[in-house]
Amino acid sequence: MDTRSMAIQAKKASILMQGVSTELKNSALEKIAEALLAKKDAIFEANRQDLERSAAENLAAPLLKRLKFDEKKLNEVVDGIHSLIGLDDPVGKTLLARELDDGMKLCRVSCPIGVIGIIFESRPDALVQISTLCLKSGNAVLLKGGREAALTNRILVQVIEEASMEAGMPDHWINLLESREEVNEMLALDEYVDLIIPRGSNQFVRYIMDNSRIPVLGHADGICHVYIDRDVDADRAVDIVVDSKTQYVAVCNALETLLIHKDSAEKVLPSLKEALEAKSVEIRGCERTREIIPCKAATEDDWKTEYLDLILSIKVVDSLDEAIDHINTYGSGHTDAIISKDEGNISRFLEYVDSANVFANCSTRFSDGFRYGFGAEVGISTNKIHARGPVGLDGLVTYKYKLIGDGHIVADYASGKRRFTHRDL
Amino acid sequence: MDTRSMAIQAKKASILMQGVSTELKNSALEKIAEALLAKKDAIFEANRQDLERSAAENLAAPLLKRLKFDEKKLNEVVDGIHSLIGLDDPVGKTLLARELDDGMKLCRVSCPIGVIGIIFESRPDALVQISTLCLKSGNAVLLKGGREAALTNRILVQVIEEASMEAGMPDHWINLLESREEVNEMLALDEYVDLIIPRGSNQFVRYIMDNSRIPVLGHADGICHVYIDRDVDADRAVDIVVDSKTQYVAVCNALETLLIHKDSAEKVLPSLKEALEAKSVEIRGCERTREIIPCKAATEDDWKTEYLDLILSIKVVDSLDEAIDHINTYGSGHTDAIISKDEGNISRFLEYVDSANVFANCSTRFSDGFRYGFGAEVGISTNKIHARGPVGLDGLVTYKYKLIGDGHIVADYASGKRRFTHRDL
Repeated sequence: MDTRSMAIQAKKASILMQGVSTELKNSALEKIAEALLAKKDAIFEANRQDLERSAAENLAAPLLKRLKFDEKKLNEVVDGIHSLIGLDDPVGKTLLARELDDGMKLCRVSCPIGVIGIIFESRPDALVQISTLCLKSGNAVLLKGGREAALTNRILVQVIEEASMEAGMPDHWINLLESREEVNEMLALDEYVDLIIPRGSNQFVRYIMDNSRIPVLGHADGICHVYIDRDVDADRAVDIVVDSKTQYVAVCNALETLLIHKDSAEKVLPSLKEALEAKSVEIRGCERTREIIPCKAATEDDWKTEYLDLILSIKVVDSLDEAIDHINTYGSGHTDAIISKDEGNISRFLEYVDSANVFANCSTRFSDGFRYGFGAEVGISTNKIHARGPVGLDGLVTYKYKLIGDGHIVADYASGKRRFTHRDL
Repeated sequence: MDTRSMAIQAKKASILMQGVSTELKNSALEKIAEALLAKKDAIFEANRQDLERSAAENLAAPLLKRLKFDEKKLNEVVDGIHSLIGLDDPVGKTLLARELDDGMKLCRVSCPIGVIGIIFESRPDALVQISTLCLKSGNAVLLKGGREAALTNRILVQVIEEASMEAGMPDHWINLLESREEVNEMLALDEYVDLIIPRGSNQFVRYIMDNSRIPVLGHADGICHVYIDRDVDADRAVDIVVDSKTQYVAVCNALETLLIHKDSAEKVLPSLKEALEAKSVEIRGCERTREIIPCKAATEDDWKTEYLDLILSIKVVDSLDEAIDHINTYGSGHTDAIISKDEGNISRFLEYVDSANVFANCSTRFSDGFRYGFGAEVGISTNKIHARGPVGLDGLVTYKYKLIGDGHIVADYASGKRRFTHRDL
């Protein structure tokens, strides 16, 4: 089937999904969880073939690890489905109710977005997580996973589709794209696809934005900062910086650049260097940093780089405002933290740093849907439009205005015969 | 000054505007209202020159009328500013507050979007309305109005800027672009401009979408429908259709296609034809319509056309579901209404018609920010992302996550030493 026909049938399914009840969605999720467990041998076998082929093609070890879908991963996704069942349905919430006039009532009600195109990396567990989030939020989905996981993805979609249809979900709500050409075709289908969520490199996200009219939800870079203010507890500052940098180095909410007030530099930098070197972190410092601790020299490029690696750039600043300005200039609007005892400085930082997640006295690694208690996330958005920060179920719905009248016409208001009451209900 | 420098200074202003208080914003609005009244002679004189030049260039009469900025228009915009002062500040609202653990609190707080580029038609009153909405929502703005209104726009921006700076607003929060080339330059400045709101033709909106990575908020077409169900009061149906079609014909929420259940056609169409002809409306009907009332034949193209004129296409359908399907296929997701006595059919229509505004038993012309009681609107969005339907102040803000901890690090949760409490506050 060609991509256009697939998108058209997804659109049809998406209309039917507008009216699917919470009960039906939860029962479909339950059946999916059961089916994944019941068919695990076939799933593991498909994954074994993917792993074997990818190993033969010399796929790097960390990618092979991400590709693996075993008993542990299966149990994790099944647990995820059960917690998803427990979450509130984001659809059908009345967000505003207002009487416009006698007998005429306006409601703003949350509803699914429609058809969502999601392009994700090689982890097969991401396929299950993403498609079940779409189901719970009532959206049809076009999925494109990594080529390495082709067989695993195919059987996972088949199991999910069969189990959910058995529960009564509309045909074709879930669809799998298998090639780059199909992704390119999808980018032109703005008539049928309402939103694209690309999970991948900065370059890839920009490619999508440049080649489609469809709105894109995603994040490009994660150039995250910690700023150490003038008056701090050195041990606490070191702990937070080390956690932000090293707790998991290859993720978007890991620290990349440390800014430190000149009055704290001598107190904190020596012990920080020691702690970072114990974790094999390479330091690249500005000139003033290098006057205090020996390290490589940072260049202008370092302030713009998402290392995703055991490297930290450090800059000494003269003031809070210089730190804020540096972050707003070089940052990516993802996650930035201040370490300070000064309430005024903290609130100034949280106010003026223009990022999705602004933190005080804790690690940047907390910016995450699970840690925020959203249950699950499709990704972290550095968009300012629609959804910002960790995007859970709430980011997968929109709303519509329902207005119920009793023969009301506008001419009566234009002529002054009737007047609006505009009374919130 | 070149467009890039203008965007950079707008971005700087937008950061300062994140922290501007409600009091300051309201006092700036008050000063703007006063200054517009105080400088009305100079404004009217600039407008007179625009009108004179445009008349000499043979601008069409309806456009000249829109261009005119006189005492009446001035009083309307000043009234608009006063009602804007009375509206709630959309910035700084706590949308979610949650304890993640002892001493660690997460808040989702509304904040301005940043820099908004707005391209609008020749009405100078739109400039005042749009820029004051941006001020109240804390956004810096790049404005581009119609070329015909060049002198009027220039003096209005000057008056607004001076008055607001006197009140304490940051420099350069409002900026005027004066040429198409500058608009094209703006489209490439996704680093500084966060959102573009184009008000104009379908073709124009698509041009913007195809030539920029910046998110676009707007609507393309307004192909609005009324569906007359099988069991209706004929007089009421005629009143609603006539109002939807003729109350103001050149606007996006005016009716373009009437769908009517086959059981109502003979009862309603003859008197509807009479009422529409009294308003000089041309009818284009499907074959079954033409068996009941003589009229021109509708073609496939008619179902896809936004006439913005005294023309109505009519189609007889066999069922509610055929009507819903027609609307979801040919409509533009703007405003669609059902006329029915059947509660079940009404709720089915409101559920499955995938449009921003879905109405029962009232005119399509009600879809409007003022009529909804939003106070003012920047436009009506048929986007499903971010803001849908009439967009008022709420559509001009986003949110950020503020997390305040007390030395918390992620390693403690990964090791199991600490657990999240996730308690809503």
